[in-house]
Amino acid sequence: MTAAGLPMAVPAQDLPARVRIHEVGARDGLQNEKSAVPTEIKADFIRRLAESGLTTIEATSFVHPKWVPQLADAEQLFPRVRDLEGVALPVLVPNERGLDRALALGARRIAVFASATESFAKANLNRTVDESLAMFEPVVARAKEEKIHVRGYLSMCFGDPWEGPVPIAQVVRVCRALLDMGCHELSLGDTIGVATPGHVQALLAALNESGVPTDALGVHFHDTYGQALANTLAALQHGVTTVDASAGGLGGCPYAKSATGNLATEDLVWMLHGLGIETGVDLGRLVATSVWMAAHLSRPSPSRTVRALSHKES
Amino acid sequence: MTAAGLPMAVPAQDLPARVRIHEVGARDGLQNEKSAVPTEIKADFIRRLAESGLTTIEATSFVHPKWVPQLADAEQLFPRVRDLEGVALPVLVPNERGLDRALALGARRIAVFASATESFAKANLNRTVDESLAMFEPVVARAKEEKIHVRGYLSMCFGDPWEGPVPIAQVVRVCRALLDMGCHELSLGDTIGVATPGHVQALLAALNESGVPTDALGVHFHDTYGQALANTLAALQHGVTTVDASAGGLGGCPYAKSATGNLATEDLVWMLHGLGIETGVDLGRLVATSVWMAAHLSRPSPSRTVRALSHKES
Repeated sequence: MTAAGLPMAVPAQDLPARVRIHEVGARDGLQNEKSAVPTEIKADFIRRLAESGLTTIEATSFVHPKWVPQLADAEQLFPRVRDLEGVALPVLVPNERGLDRALALGARRIAVFASATESFAKANLNRTVDESLAMFEPVVARAKEEKIHVRGYLSMCFGDPWEGPVPIAQVVRVCRALLDMGCHELSLGDTIGVATPGHVQALLAALNESGVPTDALGVHFHDTYGQALANTLAALQHGVTTVDASAGGLGGCPYAKSATGNLATEDLVWMLHGLGIETGVDLGRLVATSVWMAAHLSRPSPSRTVRALSHKES
Repeated sequence: MTAAGLPMAVPAQDLPARVRIHEVGARDGLQNEKSAVPTEIKADFIRRLAESGLTTIEATSFVHPKWVPQLADAEQLFPRVRDLEGVALPVLVPNERGLDRALALGARRIAVFASATESFAKANLNRTVDESLAMFEPVVARAKEEKIHVRGYLSMCFGDPWEGPVPIAQVVRVCRALLDMGCHELSLGDTIGVATPGHVQALLAALNESGVPTDALGVHFHDTYGQALANTLAALQHGVTTVDASAGGLGGCPYAKSATGNLATEDLVWMLHGLGIETGVDLGRLVATSVWMAAHLSRPSPSRTVRALSHKES
């Protein structure tokens, strides 16, 4: 720790020089809040995240409001933030109707969300895995025509609450399908947080063997069992340079049964900067943003770095 | 995750086959509790930890009761647990008087605690680093005569709250002094939790270069900034096979300013078993023990694995 509350930088061998953080707090985080956050607060949140140096900030979702009422204000929110300079603002899009809405507002990056398991495809999308891929196909095809960048989320890449451990070959098959369809990058999700570092590296190696280059892959770890940062280190050691995280660890209260426990961006930044890896993020400003948002949500951030640094200041 | 709430084992390359967990919850954990835990509960706790498969359980401290009133019952506690079969029960000993007390009760393993920084040596022991080493010298010499195993704790190996980053050469010097004095193993402590994986590997490499073999080294990480498990992975990759952890993450409430945030044994075991590394620990029994202790302390365990697995059962 330096005097300024920053980690001391001691690089490790064979790690990337720079990591792009894909910030999901405003979407993945806030979509799990019990009561919807006011649109103006969301817009402020995104602006503050951008001022903290984050350059990829997932803004909202164009899922039908019936399913995610917390993000039903996408039409009102997106225009408030879309002109932020130097920031990519991907939005979640489940189908062609969602794509229409996103395009009408000028979105330039979208994300579709698939599942590696049948159980979760059924639970989340009410479709089989292949039916959901068929649903995404015309979305991705049109996005390509419009020269829109497409990210493919893949849930349950390691374990599934109904099915247990997920076979690596099954994950590889869906990844290949998403890339063949035209997705530019994938985000490998450990939705229930059960993965460990060897499993992470085994999946990444299997994807490489199937012809998927590491630079098309991002990782999305949950801290349900406290493994997210160790898994991230394993992914960095494999060459991954895109890491999803949620400011302040937003996304399901870690004290509730429904805990999703997104990796907190601040805990990630502490490790990355400690490793001498550039992120462009100003950790102090990011912590201040999460403290501000925690006040709006009336509960403390579960991020350990946010707690440590905000206690230090108080 | 398997059906039984255990991680799926996927080994990674170049990691040890087995790790010895040095369980510190009963000593390092409980010494930070505001009100002392009854002796019988402590004894039960240690028995339950042993039944969970832990084989090194730090039992208590023979520091003067004035300094650590929470462990003032060492004389009453130790006889209650000393005959546990197959379990090593090290006790903390600050000086010759403490050693006398420990030996009188039949302790066969002791630990002394030094600091890598002058500021913490002054704050914790009211001595310079060299004065504290001089205090330990006759303790270690007598322990050797008695064929007692001696562990040397070294605090503030990475950062210090007063001094900031701690130079590696300074840590190496005190490590060498403790080993030359006769300590059998060292525990490298990140007392304020600021370390990151590159720093961990750099310190371990520097110690090796100074002639300290890795098998004389254990690591003791705190989760203050969420880095403990990633740092542990880095240490395992360097060949470390002794890892300190605290059942349930006991040791300073992580929600308080004074948070120490010991690495939770359960989070560690989840990772180790996920990596296919043997520990001898039955994770379900250990979680049950931490849930039981949390009930006695009237607050939830900060361990994410304890929370996830105990919610699963309820």
